[in-house]
Amino acid sequence: MARCNELATFTEEPGRITRSYGTPALTEARELVAQWMRDAGLDVHIDAVGNVRGRVEGSEPTAPSLLLGSHLDSVRDAGRYDGPLGILVAIETVDHLRERRQPAPFPVEVIAFADEEGLRFQTTYLGSCALAGSFDAAFLDLVDENGVTLREAMAAFGGDPVALAATALHPGEALAYLEVHIEQGPYLESVAAPVGVVTAISGQSRILAAFNGEAGHAGTVGMHLRRDPLPAAAEIVLAAENLAQHTPGLLATVGTIEVTPGASNVIAGQARFSVDVRHPEDAVRTGAVSALECRVREVAATRSLGIDWHIAREHSAVFCDASLAIRLAEAVAAAGLPVERLPSGAGHDAVVMSEVVPVAMLFVRCAGGISHHPAESVMADDVAAAIDVLERFLDALADEKPR
Amino acid sequence: MARCNELATFTEEPGRITRSYGTPALTEARELVAQWMRDAGLDVHIDAVGNVRGRVEGSEPTAPSLLLGSHLDSVRDAGRYDGPLGILVAIETVDHLRERRQPAPFPVEVIAFADEEGLRFQTTYLGSCALAGSFDAAFLDLVDENGVTLREAMAAFGGDPVALAATALHPGEALAYLEVHIEQGPYLESVAAPVGVVTAISGQSRILAAFNGEAGHAGTVGMHLRRDPLPAAAEIVLAAENLAQHTPGLLATVGTIEVTPGASNVIAGQARFSVDVRHPEDAVRTGAVSALECRVREVAATRSLGIDWHIAREHSAVFCDASLAIRLAEAVAAAGLPVERLPSGAGHDAVVMSEVVPVAMLFVRCAGGISHHPAESVMADDVAAAIDVLERFLDALADEKPR
Repeated sequence: MARCNELATFTEEPGRITRSYGTPALTEARELVAQWMRDAGLDVHIDAVGNVRGRVEGSEPTAPSLLLGSHLDSVRDAGRYDGPLGILVAIETVDHLRERRQPAPFPVEVIAFADEEGLRFQTTYLGSCALAGSFDAAFLDLVDENGVTLREAMAAFGGDPVALAATALHPGEALAYLEVHIEQGPYLESVAAPVGVVTAISGQSRILAAFNGEAGHAGTVGMHLRRDPLPAAAEIVLAAENLAQHTPGLLATVGTIEVTPGASNVIAGQARFSVDVRHPEDAVRTGAVSALECRVREVAATRSLGIDWHIAREHSAVFCDASLAIRLAEAVAAAGLPVERLPSGAGHDAVVMSEVVPVAMLFVRCAGGISHHPAESVMADDVAAAIDVLERFLDALADEKPR
Repeated sequence: MARCNELATFTEEPGRITRSYGTPALTEARELVAQWMRDAGLDVHIDAVGNVRGRVEGSEPTAPSLLLGSHLDSVRDAGRYDGPLGILVAIETVDHLRERRQPAPFPVEVIAFADEEGLRFQTTYLGSCALAGSFDAAFLDLVDENGVTLREAMAAFGGDPVALAATALHPGEALAYLEVHIEQGPYLESVAAPVGVVTAISGQSRILAAFNGEAGHAGTVGMHLRRDPLPAAAEIVLAAENLAQHTPGLLATVGTIEVTPGASNVIAGQARFSVDVRHPEDAVRTGAVSALECRVREVAATRSLGIDWHIAREHSAVFCDASLAIRLAEAVAAAGLPVERLPSGAGHDAVVMSEVVPVAMLFVRCAGGISHHPAESVMADDVAAAIDVLERFLDALADEKPR
């Protein structure tokens, strides 16, 4: 907890936590994390993209390594746990192992990813993409708001754009990737569980839609002569809510809505809105999107409106590795905690890492489900529980391997 | 029609029609209208607020005068008929009377009001308020966007802020006020009628409302744990539409809606919206507003949301004078036209004039119900019909008076 507070002091913006890729604030935070890694007995290096990676050899130096990590960057005006908590829990766990003088039969590597939120270059997962070998070289030409390219930022940050490909994990190099992260939702709080085993990271569809009608004078156009797009959008807002409420695990959110011209005495001519649809199973999500599109077309036909329907973003779901999830659940139970399983609706570095290695995630309860906000809060006992679970998980994994 | 086109060339903004109170554009338009008045045999003067008033004496010079008029100012990027058409129809009618060498038994005055839209000082009806004696002296201190006070603008426009009170009509000075205006709605077009007799000018309630819930991550907060204010607002959008569709004559419009924080992947924390409610009968309107407020409270209770409900504006309905409306309908019938009666959902100078004199209004069909827009359009035949009806109306009124 103290270390989370300490990391929170590294920021680009005095008075709030903002720490984006390649900035002096992130460099300073990274140096402190590197020191804590060394204190825990890890050999530390900075990789080509600027991630901090600390490694402790196992009794079998050539065995595939267990990767533990999360990200060190933040959104603008962030909380202090989203990202750093997972790194610090991993360091603490490795430190405990060292104190117990019980090297695992496999190397353990703790990774502090340099970019997950994508604040500076409007891209996400730069850190984990480098490890997964899926870093798109075209990203190097992206520029931040000051005209600095990602290539320049990476070099200034101690990285090496030319060596990116060499940073990628080799096949068989890693055993598994495990990430501890705050839940960012209220589920664990609602069931009074300190931690939860993540089953999958939901797929997501982001739709940008609009109904196009006819603007008019609010005082002169009779109701039956109107082609008002806003009530049509209202029908879809409620249809999306209703569909999600009646489809287990489905989340549907209309987070933006705008009407033009947008005056109290003018019937709108256009209503634009977004629909965010998420589910751990892709078929359920795409089925829901199709059902909503169908409803949009029905409403438009009934109301004589035009429509725009554009799927702006679509990510498939990622399943956490089943056997790792079972081991993690066993570790939760062994720690005397209730075993809760839940999907993650938010994306994480584990999404990218799953391309090259089996992944598992452990969520830590956070107050009110609040994240990406200064009010983000976790309890010290829950963090201790997460460390306990992680340690038990490592022990169990180690017991299965020859020492 | 040609005169409407000519007036459209007087504008503050090249390429579009914008003519607000006290501007050089309005002064030039006023000078041309004054000339047309003189050509029609009217004695012209500019009153204290800057209205152009042209008068022709009747056979009974001391009889109360018949007032005909509309406004010469415009909204920004206006059409060419909203306002000017009523002035020009009145001038043309008086010109016809003169050509027929049949003075009415009463004086006839044509008024081109200098401000109805209120574009420059964010007030409406400055011109008619001066005649009705309801000009609020506090308005003189209002400033436009360049820091010019209304007092200064009025003086520069040939008016006289000190003489405003003296401009007001004396009791018994006027017989009636009749205004011809484009409908600004699609009703007459939908029933294929060139003109329509206005029964009343609807009362209006403008409500600014909000539901207050709890923002959250669209991917992590389960549907049953949400306090999303947008679906609540959607329920009210549909409730308002439904109420208006099932209440004859009621218009209800949600013309603005905004959510914060307003990101596609964030559940809204607040949804703000306006509701514009209009009806020619005040009791129906206030009943509808109460019903909607009740529904808002129900929805808020069901969804555990806070609410704001603020009636930002409330205008009572104005009934057109029943006997004048009957005479106007008779004139429509005598002209061989279908008699259509309709309320006005928009406000007009007649609202203010009704405080001191019986009022009547004749609407002229306009294409697509479009107004306050360059696409505003009327047909020459319909304008001719309006002139014919106005002439017959004056003749009938004259026949009832001793000559």
